[in-house]
Amino acid sequence: MATDHSTQILAPRWLIPVAPRDEVLEDHAVWVADGRIEAILTREQAQHRRQASDHPVEWIDLPTHALIPGLVNGHTHAAMSLMRGLADDLPLMTWLEEHIWPVEGQMLGHDFVHDGTMLAALEMIRGGTTTLSDMYFFPEAAIEAVQAAGLRGVFGIVVIDAPNRWSANAEEALAKGVELVNDWRRHSRIEFTLAPHAPYTVGDAALERVRTMSDQLDLPVHMHVHETAHEVEAAVAANGERPLARLDRLGLVNERLIAVHMTQLTDAEIDRLAVTGSHVLHSPQSNLKLASGFCPVAKLLEAGVNVGLGTDGAASNNDLDMFDEMRTAALIAKPIANDAAAVSAHQALHMATLGGARAFGLDERIGSIEPGKRADLVAVNLDEPETQPVFDPVSTLVYSASRRQVSDVWVDGHALLRGGRLRQLDSRAIIDQANTWREPIRWAKPAG
Amino acid sequence: MATDHSTQILAPRWLIPVAPRDEVLEDHAVWVADGRIEAILTREQAQHRRQASDHPVEWIDLPTHALIPGLVNGHTHAAMSLMRGLADDLPLMTWLEEHIWPVEGQMLGHDFVHDGTMLAALEMIRGGTTTLSDMYFFPEAAIEAVQAAGLRGVFGIVVIDAPNRWSANAEEALAKGVELVNDWRRHSRIEFTLAPHAPYTVGDAALERVRTMSDQLDLPVHMHVHETAHEVEAAVAANGERPLARLDRLGLVNERLIAVHMTQLTDAEIDRLAVTGSHVLHSPQSNLKLASGFCPVAKLLEAGVNVGLGTDGAASNNDLDMFDEMRTAALIAKPIANDAAAVSAHQALHMATLGGARAFGLDERIGSIEPGKRADLVAVNLDEPETQPVFDPVSTLVYSASRRQVSDVWVDGHALLRGGRLRQLDSRAIIDQANTWREPIRWAKPAG
Repeated sequence: MATDHSTQILAPRWLIPVAPRDEVLEDHAVWVADGRIEAILTREQAQHRRQASDHPVEWIDLPTHALIPGLVNGHTHAAMSLMRGLADDLPLMTWLEEHIWPVEGQMLGHDFVHDGTMLAALEMIRGGTTTLSDMYFFPEAAIEAVQAAGLRGVFGIVVIDAPNRWSANAEEALAKGVELVNDWRRHSRIEFTLAPHAPYTVGDAALERVRTMSDQLDLPVHMHVHETAHEVEAAVAANGERPLARLDRLGLVNERLIAVHMTQLTDAEIDRLAVTGSHVLHSPQSNLKLASGFCPVAKLLEAGVNVGLGTDGAASNNDLDMFDEMRTAALIAKPIANDAAAVSAHQALHMATLGGARAFGLDERIGSIEPGKRADLVAVNLDEPETQPVFDPVSTLVYSASRRQVSDVWVDGHALLRGGRLRQLDSRAIIDQANTWREPIRWAKPAG
Repeated sequence: MATDHSTQILAPRWLIPVAPRDEVLEDHAVWVADGRIEAILTREQAQHRRQASDHPVEWIDLPTHALIPGLVNGHTHAAMSLMRGLADDLPLMTWLEEHIWPVEGQMLGHDFVHDGTMLAALEMIRGGTTTLSDMYFFPEAAIEAVQAAGLRGVFGIVVIDAPNRWSANAEEALAKGVELVNDWRRHSRIEFTLAPHAPYTVGDAALERVRTMSDQLDLPVHMHVHETAHEVEAAVAANGERPLARLDRLGLVNERLIAVHMTQLTDAEIDRLAVTGSHVLHSPQSNLKLASGFCPVAKLLEAGVNVGLGTDGAASNNDLDMFDEMRTAALIAKPIANDAAAVSAHQALHMATLGGARAFGLDERIGSIEPGKRADLVAVNLDEPETQPVFDPVSTLVYSASRRQVSDVWVDGHALLRGGRLRQLDSRAIIDQANTWREPIRWAKPAG
């Protein structure tokens, strides 16, 4: 990866750094060296500094583009792209129990996860996502795909009591997880979380182990929590305790918790999340599609809770489109808060970048265009009929733009997409490989 | 337009006729002659018939495409594309009174409407929309643009009591409307509605005239109704009557009514709409963005009310993307109905095609791929990473596809887009012309 060590100047029409918040710079440029954002300069300063440089500096003009931080897809199950559109218009438990779990029970393995994650990586690169937080079985296969694709990944060690094709029980999952964390400790683009599936699939004993390991290894805990009213009601009926209260009792509600979905939240619970510094990961399209409910994002932000954004898996969305997810997050927040000013375009972009980075403890390295951060950058060409005229480029990005307008994607300063063309992946080969799974998946029947 | 009179066979991978409902045909082809759908044949039948034909028949292979009826954008204000992103994250009345109306008050005119409608037409063609139902001032200018673009249009004669730059009062608007209807009576792609703006901007006297003219000229009545709770509450506070009840008292609730938005509906009102054969035009993204509320679409469909779909204007959406609108309609219906099966992908596609056509009385001519109908057809290429694998192409179209995958668009059998390329519009010229309005709009100040 020779370009990792080159020096480049990116000179967009609009530079949207995300931090400081709400800022839009014109006539500015980003100086990138060794995969790192070295400086933000005026265009004139950049030209002078380039002339004075004793080594070649590439000047990349982006004359009709907005340059934004790479998008952080904070919650996905990448390999489930192989099951995109397999079963729609069904509630969560029917969808899981009668469609997804039976297929997974028969088919999961290294190759399935590798091929599905490659398809997902392809979709993510083309759509401006530079970091994914994945949560799936066989994370070693997903890592292999994400590495090959050149993306940054945070991999959840899935902990679930029931035996599955990756682990016989929670203990084995955690043991495999420790091994993976050790194997990849020195790799700068691979991170981990502990990922107990959900309160209703993981018992107290396993959650206590998760808590201990999270403390010992300083790992975030990424978990589906309060996804549906049914989940909360069933827990209360069974043991008189709401799932979040149970996690709190077990010591898991703290600054390492990334609680995904959270469609059921009392005001007291919101306060508790704020006080403890817990993070919420919002997946609005999945919540709509499964009729799970509405996460009260405006209230969470007002209370000071950090919120990231994720697409969930393509089997329940049915895409990995962070532009669409930003738009949906900004739109749906308004009637829920009964306030058309709730979750502005700027706030949606923040959730999709720095909010996600912060949730996973990566905000020192990614999530905004600031000197010292890694050069995970995305250019979006706004010179198309669908995004003209431009009054506020952030509004244009969130409310009008399509991910299809993403022209360039860099991770660690390394180009994965340039001028709309993939630089290292072979789209045809990946699609064809993914399609070898189509018929087997279609005919997979519930075991027993 | 020589191709209008040619004969073509379109042979897609998937043929989705919309009527009969839920059908997906493989190995079939559509025989198009003189701008009309002549027959739906098996691929083999089409080949034989082509060989037997005594005149040249073009064979158009669409090997990885879904062929669908042209989308019907049932509610838009096309020229407002010039104000896309001008004012976001604001409630309806603030947005109208402090931003949109002041600009319109200063700038509206023939050229503004023409140039804005051209930009909208460009966006619609690229996104698979073949028919728009427009509602804006200076409809003669919009007609000119839509004619030039080759689209099919239904133009609302905007009736509003307050003087505006197009009409001094409701009477003048209706007089101008009669003239327009007469001028265009013989043109097959231009239709009209009477479009009283909203219950709160049009008094009883004008609505009675609208009712009479609707009867005399057999014109639908296209009107914003119950857009927000505020609208209904204010009407009840002022005269003790809900706006829909008032329209009913004035004889307007009948099979010619197309009531747009309808976020506030009692069960009795839904029954009344069903019994009277009234139509509802659903604009979910605009309702979300302005925090207007949720239209109970699942209940309406269950009661037998015909529902169409529209984007609203690009100033409150902020696009004219019927794919995104289908997806949002299908997604948002589910938590509102508390049922993940509510508004399936097939139902969303029906609303976006035949539902809209039926609302405007055009279902004998467009809205589905059936012999005898006009050849308003759209091909969508699903062979991209974002839409693979395909288990059900209708699910793929609604939940995964982007309008950017629209490759071909025909209206009356005439190609407006082929292989992703515009056939008669000059995109650069239209965008540049639209942008001449940007600075004047930005600096337009509230009059007085």
